[in-house]
Amino acid sequence: MANIAKKVSWSGRGDDRGERTPLLNGDEEVKYNRQVPDTLDYDNSENQLFLEEERRMSHMGFRCLEIRRWVICGLIGFLTGLIACMIDIAVEKLAGYKYFAVKLNIEKYTELGGLSISLILWAVLNSAFVMFGAIAVAFVEPIAAGSGIPQIKCFLNGVKIPRVVRLKTLVIKVFGVICSVAGGLAVGKEGPMIHSGAVVAAGVSQGRSTSLKKDFKIFEYFRRDTEKRDFVSAGAAAGVSAAFGAPVGGVLFSLEEGASFWNQMLTWRIFFASMVSTFTLNFFLSIYHGKPGELSSPGLINFGRFDSDIVQYNLYEIPLFIIMGALGEGNVTLSLYIHRPCLQVMEAMLVAAVTATVSFAMIYFSNDCQPLGQDNTEEYPLQLFCADGEYNSMATAFFNTPERSVRSLFHNPPGTYNPVTLGVFTLAYFFLAVWTYGLTVSAGVFIPSLLIGAAWGRLFGILLSFIIWADPGKYALIGAAAQLGGIVRMTLSLTVILVEATGNVTYGFPIMLVLMTAKIVGDYFIEGLYDIHIKLQSVPFLHWDAPPTSHWLTAREVMSSPVTCLNRVEKVGRIVDVLSNTSTIHNGFPVVAHTRIICGLILRSQLIVLLKHKVFVERASSRLSQRKLQLKDFRDAYPRFPPIQSIHVSQDERECMMDLTEFMNPTPYTVPQETSLPRVFKLFRALGLRHLVVVDNENRVVGLVTRKDLARYHVGKDGLEELHLAQT
Amino acid sequence: MANIAKKVSWSGRGDDRGERTPLLNGDEEVKYNRQVPDTLDYDNSENQLFLEEERRMSHMGFRCLEIRRWVICGLIGFLTGLIACMIDIAVEKLAGYKYFAVKLNIEKYTELGGLSISLILWAVLNSAFVMFGAIAVAFVEPIAAGSGIPQIKCFLNGVKIPRVVRLKTLVIKVFGVICSVAGGLAVGKEGPMIHSGAVVAAGVSQGRSTSLKKDFKIFEYFRRDTEKRDFVSAGAAAGVSAAFGAPVGGVLFSLEEGASFWNQMLTWRIFFASMVSTFTLNFFLSIYHGKPGELSSPGLINFGRFDSDIVQYNLYEIPLFIIMGALGEGNVTLSLYIHRPCLQVMEAMLVAAVTATVSFAMIYFSNDCQPLGQDNTEEYPLQLFCADGEYNSMATAFFNTPERSVRSLFHNPPGTYNPVTLGVFTLAYFFLAVWTYGLTVSAGVFIPSLLIGAAWGRLFGILLSFIIWADPGKYALIGAAAQLGGIVRMTLSLTVILVEATGNVTYGFPIMLVLMTAKIVGDYFIEGLYDIHIKLQSVPFLHWDAPPTSHWLTAREVMSSPVTCLNRVEKVGRIVDVLSNTSTIHNGFPVVAHTRIICGLILRSQLIVLLKHKVFVERASSRLSQRKLQLKDFRDAYPRFPPIQSIHVSQDERECMMDLTEFMNPTPYTVPQETSLPRVFKLFRALGLRHLVVVDNENRVVGLVTRKDLARYHVGKDGLEELHLAQT
Repeated sequence: MANIAKKVSWSGRGDDRGERTPLLNGDEEVKYNRQVPDTLDYDNSENQLFLEEERRMSHMGFRCLEIRRWVICGLIGFLTGLIACMIDIAVEKLAGYKYFAVKLNIEKYTELGGLSISLILWAVLNSAFVMFGAIAVAFVEPIAAGSGIPQIKCFLNGVKIPRVVRLKTLVIKVFGVICSVAGGLAVGKEGPMIHSGAVVAAGVSQGRSTSLKKDFKIFEYFRRDTEKRDFVSAGAAAGVSAAFGAPVGGVLFSLEEGASFWNQMLTWRIFFASMVSTFTLNFFLSIYHGKPGELSSPGLINFGRFDSDIVQYNLYEIPLFIIMGALGEGNVTLSLYIHRPCLQVMEAMLVAAVTATVSFAMIYFSNDCQPLGQDNTEEYPLQLFCADGEYNSMATAFFNTPERSVRSLFHNPPGTYNPVTLGVFTLAYFFLAVWTYGLTVSAGVFIPSLLIGAAWGRLFGILLSFIIWADPGKYALIGAAAQLGGIVRMTLSLTVILVEATGNVTYGFPIMLVLMTAKIVGDYFIEGLYDIHIKLQSVPFLHWDAPPTSHWLTAREVMSSPVTCLNRVEKVGRIVDVLSNTSTIHNGFPVVAHTRIICGLILRSQLIVLLKHKVFVERASSRLSQRKLQLKDFRDAYPRFPPIQSIHVSQDERECMMDLTEFMNPTPYTVPQETSLPRVFKLFRALGLRHLVVVDNENRVVGLVTRKDLARYHVGKDGLEELHLAQT
Repeated sequence: MANIAKKVSWSGRGDDRGERTPLLNGDEEVKYNRQVPDTLDYDNSENQLFLEEERRMSHMGFRCLEIRRWVICGLIGFLTGLIACMIDIAVEKLAGYKYFAVKLNIEKYTELGGLSISLILWAVLNSAFVMFGAIAVAFVEPIAAGSGIPQIKCFLNGVKIPRVVRLKTLVIKVFGVICSVAGGLAVGKEGPMIHSGAVVAAGVSQGRSTSLKKDFKIFEYFRRDTEKRDFVSAGAAAGVSAAFGAPVGGVLFSLEEGASFWNQMLTWRIFFASMVSTFTLNFFLSIYHGKPGELSSPGLINFGRFDSDIVQYNLYEIPLFIIMGALGEGNVTLSLYIHRPCLQVMEAMLVAAVTATVSFAMIYFSNDCQPLGQDNTEEYPLQLFCADGEYNSMATAFFNTPERSVRSLFHNPPGTYNPVTLGVFTLAYFFLAVWTYGLTVSAGVFIPSLLIGAAWGRLFGILLSFIIWADPGKYALIGAAAQLGGIVRMTLSLTVILVEATGNVTYGFPIMLVLMTAKIVGDYFIEGLYDIHIKLQSVPFLHWDAPPTSHWLTAREVMSSPVTCLNRVEKVGRIVDVLSNTSTIHNGFPVVAHTRIICGLILRSQLIVLLKHKVFVERASSRLSQRKLQLKDFRDAYPRFPPIQSIHVSQDERECMMDLTEFMNPTPYTVPQETSLPRVFKLFRALGLRHLVVVDNENRVVGLVTRKDLARYHVGKDGLEELHLAQT
């Protein structure tokens, strides 16, 4: 179970904060970059401005807001479905042209001899597609690499990965995934849909695009982390829904991965977005396929209909399923450490060519001919050296998009595949998938996992059928579930996704058992793929619960201390100095009255807006200018607040004062020092906090617990372990 | 939209706290009873004893706990499935005998004349069944009346309804539901399964039965509200899962109605319980039906297979579905105010006889003959006055268990029903169902709602088919969804339940639209049935969010003040006086140091255990006796703590002191006085609090917010309204 994981560079070329560090260089830049990634604030800052606005709003106003939320969710679903539809059609067209050209060529040279020309044609076509995709990802937007699921998990958890929900990322992602799937890599187009949905949501809900510098002046109320997170959940769910035709699975994915506080209305909105998304995809695809209104393809992948008689399973099969679950655990990530974009592109092209070559060799050297049936669903049956009326069965697996291959493995009648063929295929595809996963291309891991699992599951079924009767298609499904579960380690949402994708609830129980087994066995050896990625980034990711043995620890041990506090009326110079201090970069500062009694909490971003607007007291016409600052100014600056270095404060201004009363959150959550870590953790997780002030008996600030302080503690083999995270 | 709702008496005969109030009488009893229902404590009291135990526990210990939780969930699912299976078989047998006898009798007298004898037989049989059920409910355990869903909603929300999760309640519930369904009332057996599952969960997870006075000395760790609530969620989900064959729907039901803090592991366990439950039911029913291993009936109700071609819907049908959703809103509860058990039994018998009479009349006067097909699924086709080879179609609807009637309405081919028959049936059944709902019998509202909806939905479909082609079965399904949605007002979970019960995901989108419409339109007129019930009880039920316009209010206005505080070392006499004070019955007391600085929170139940064990300082060998009190003593007393009046404290003992340090929760959550109501609300809801201490700047206690203080505020037509709740 080798795990040679590549440190996938989320921050890309290393200068991702380039626009924010014009005044820094050398060591300072390193220090500044160390605070990347940032965290999100899911606890609303209920300052005076906010409360005034809420109090001004009538009951009708809240109704309108609610309606606007529903409209946005509908839009998110619609756009996500549209994107999925676009990707599907583009991939189908491009891959269709490719396979058609290669097939013609193969047919031509099968008789003439000189199939190496076909191979070269295939390899060149693959490499060309992949090259475009890899160039876009490597040079334009490296964050668009991979499926984007770990990044979205982080976002929903409260960790801000730079540039992850930008329009540019979406464009590159969509383009990249079309290229890599059309280029025949061992990848799927489903995973990236989740990322795409999330980007759509983040864009639509804000009513503007910072990249396009276009502000529609709508939805301004939603310009804060709390609201944005809710919409991103809906977007991710819509993505899952479009990818697998699984609206309920989408909702559960968002909840399983993201939402800590379950809210009924929010969940309904998420469900609505999911439903609209799958409906949109279905609707437009039905038009594209020339059968408008026939809503039969709800997702990008369609497992086909399982007949009721195959769907049955017997009691004695359940232990077999569980064994398969335990087998489905091959979480290997093998990658080379390549950082230069050109080399990354070349690596991707190489893999594309190798994929073509391996596939070709497999097809060429296999002699596994099958009769060409009447109801054959293969679009490109290759005759090769088979007799007339027969086709090469190896080619079904390799000479096809992976989605179709999965479906063939599920549904083709017993006897379609030779066991040896399947065994070789499983191995070959496994190594290709492992190599491919580390490439700098947009691609999902769901489909290759399903394909590998379906292949060895079917093999298992075939071998089993020598002993007892067994339907290999059923075992292919169970194998696919086991493999996918072993890699991504989701259980509830994945069960529902698979049940919805098969369109049949009968398999629910065995799929659940298999996924549970895969997770338990898998977790014993190594973490899930997404968790490995998240861990490699050493981001402050909070799990669901505090480690069970952490009752020893209290807030006193966990908190950062001493804390930089600000006074309610503070000197501008001090604020600038505190914000500019690169050795202790904090994002939140307790505001204290005399003797350090807590009276509020203010965020770095708020201070920066205040400095930018020069909300200083003791200047001419000061009182007036101060009153003019509104919630709108904060919203306009959200989410890309300028760095402190870009704000010029003159020597005179440094002597002025700033009154923070109106802008700070006057009622931050506090805990006493003796609070146990699980209790602190629960508060953090349930409320989505970013800062928690620790106070003594007399309400004086003694420390500050941040997300990073909590994320340090993990359960290791022997108990509690402390990790080293990116320092704040 | 008449709503003449009966104040269903959850507390039954009014003396439900009888065992706790032996020393009270007259006015005092009234006051004491006014604190019923109690609230549950979902915030763990992390006192020294608890922390010591947790710290002593190894990593392995926590693993074992986790395994035990899974085992309990498996058991819950297994037992719930078994109960469902038992109910199903019992109802089928009894109803089978009844219909068989009546059918023979009718056939005999159709020729002879004198069908009134058949009517009397039918009415007497019905009344007899219902009598047994009603006697059990009215005289033995009145809380077992109805479906129990509002009570479980309250429990999961944190409101304790007395005796709701006791073994006796379960036994009466199961017996009662068998009697009422077999007695031909317009009720279903599905709703009560949710209550049954919850009782099973509460029993199994505690490893003992207080009713049977049997303590298995296992699962002692789980004897507190937090853990019990989690298991009860799993039980309710298992109940839904067994009732509808909808494991995912069950999980969503529990989450939608209960869990405020979504925890991944908990959700998986709930899902596991659900899966085991439906699997158990399926497995045993398959044995009962003589086809072991053929797992085709996952739930009590089975909507039958919808063929793929019927399942399709066209775009133009969507507005029609939405209109149907808006129609499906007839939430009428008509009941007489009957409080004496004998009269309740007689009312139930009367309704049973009337149901038989109405059904008989409908069958008798209708002349709606249909040819007896080959593949007829009716078990008791009545020929009556029809020609040979034909049967009376009205009898399909009335001479059958409601589950079968629903299935017939969904699946029978177009032309089976006469529109007039259907219209009359809808009206008659509607009034029967409305009358039945208020009876003192165990019964669910799901099936009658589905049946009424299916009937008018099919009628709608038939009428529509005069204009355009329309499959009436499809409209029956949509009508059923609309009616049920209009009554219970669930959306997400109900969508999934219906999708799982139909075994087809294609209808997901229209069902969701219909349920949404039904909810929006319905909420405009009147609240949902369960909410009406909850409101009638004036229990402190917390909704998901604070009312939107409540930013005006702060903790200062909301809190109860002044608060009875205790000192860290307090005189026994004072504690007894505080607990005995019937004018201000509180369940939690802040513990303060000098000048009222908060240093902990102690619960009434903890104080009572301390008093009972006489944990007094300044007695002979005091220190020793005090150290002996362990967490086990608190767990043994849980959940039925004795009332203060039953504890004898001598005059000497009153002069002793009690040291609360070890037992109080030293780190209760606190908020400053300026905290806005929505913020307080969020804290309460997310953490499942029961008491929240309000402090001033110097951490001195100024007030206490309880669940009741928050539940008072509701959104009315014109904005914020304050309700009058049962006073604490």
